[in-house]
Amino acid sequence: MTEPLDVAGLQRRLAEFAAARNWQPYHTPKNLAAALSVEASELVEIFQWLTPEESARVMADADTAARVTDEVADVLAYLLQLCEVLGIDALAALDAKIDRNERRFPAP
Amino acid sequence: MTEPLDVAGLQRRLAEFAAARNWQPYHTPKNLAAALSVEASELVEIFQWLTPEESARVMADADTAARVTDEVADVLAYLLQLCEVLGIDALAALDAKIDRNERRFPAP
Amino acid sequence: MTEPLDVAGLQRRLAEFAAARNWQPYHTPKNLAAALSVEASELVEIFQWLTPEESARVMADADTAARVTDEVADVLAYLLQLCEVLGIDALAALDAKIDRNERRFPAP
Amino acid sequence: MTEPLDVAGLQRRLAEFAAARNWQPYHTPKNLAAALSVEASELVEIFQWLTPEESARVMADADTAARVTDEVADVLAYLLQLCEVLGIDALAALDAKIDRNERRFPAP
Repeated sequence: MTEPLDVAGLQRRLAEFAAARNWQPYHTPKNLAAALSVEASELVEIFQWLTPEESARVMADADTAARVTDEVADVLAYLLQLCEVLGIDALAALDAKIDRNERRFPAP
Repeated sequence: MTEPLDVAGLQRRLAEFAAARNWQPYHTPKNLAAALSVEASELVEIFQWLTPEESARVMADADTAARVTDEVADVLAYLLQLCEVLGIDALAALDAKIDRNERRFPAP
Repeated sequence: MTEPLDVAGLQRRLAEFAAARNWQPYHTPKNLAAALSVEASELVEIFQWLTPEESARVMADADTAARVTDEVADVLAYLLQLCEVLGIDALAALDAKIDRNERRFPAP
Repeated sequence: MTEPLDVAGLQRRLAEFAAARNWQPYHTPKNLAAALSVEASELVEIFQWLTPEESARVMADADTAARVTDEVADVLAYLLQLCEVLGIDALAALDAKIDRNERRFPAP
């Protein structure tokens, strides 16, 4: 693989993947936001009946760890595809948000 | 700002932010997954009554663009905090997932 | 109020409410399902940082009780509006589902 | 079946079903709200790539109709179980909400 393992490179791979399959007509911002929320819920589903303590130990079981990691990838995939179609820089957005939160919630 | 604008740096800033406010007890994987899905739904809410065409134009309105960008930041913030507490490398997870999807859905 | 307080009566009131405001074009099944999930997430948001024990006591606080009750109403409102546009009998669907679950998960 | 097909009867059947399987410890309000949102997302998933027009025709396909009906039942099941553990009367909550909405959004 020649693409570097960074957000911009992964976002480009995802865009090329979708383009090669002619999936762009499906990738409206509305649909991508819905798909993102569906994947986030699949992550919630793994934890829904666990106690807080059990939830802290999910990575100790190899199958559950793989499932959680897979859902994390799905959430990130749809988030980056949404950013791609909207022209949003996800890292800059988060950086600016942390700056705002530091002013909003001063550390004690 | 001295941190580099990459995923690892932002993840570290988020971890320090939570630690400085003693929020770690709240940041169980179960709670972070729930918070992630709540933020993803706030993104869906922006699009819920829009037509596909209207949804493609959300960035043309400055207020809506700011709101979408802010929700994208929130989703990414909880995703990275979840990865932090679980020890998941989000970029490697996505890279591996794209590899699998390339085998699963061969391009025509 | 002359409508009886049952599901059919409430579903009819919701349909008349939407029709009187010309909201039907927005009420596609796709949009109503999204709105339902957004309301369900607003319910999750109330509980997201609570311990299991704290979550069991939410009705003890009058403000939180009112907020939870309001979100329950919103979820039910969108569920019934979705059933209305799709021609689904929600109570019959649930009754059939419980029957299936009784066969699928026999009581010990 | 001797229970009447109304919300109170179905809510009672669900409570008895959970009690017979000793599932009450899992049925905290927090967990039930999460499960409700997960089921709502499974409904969204059916519609996520459909156009508004396609979404209006989902009941024309028998398999999709069965899947939608099943997810509607799941959403209602968790909503009523949440109401059961919190002591909320879902129909009264919705009735009061429609009253408020009629004042908030006067018909033209």
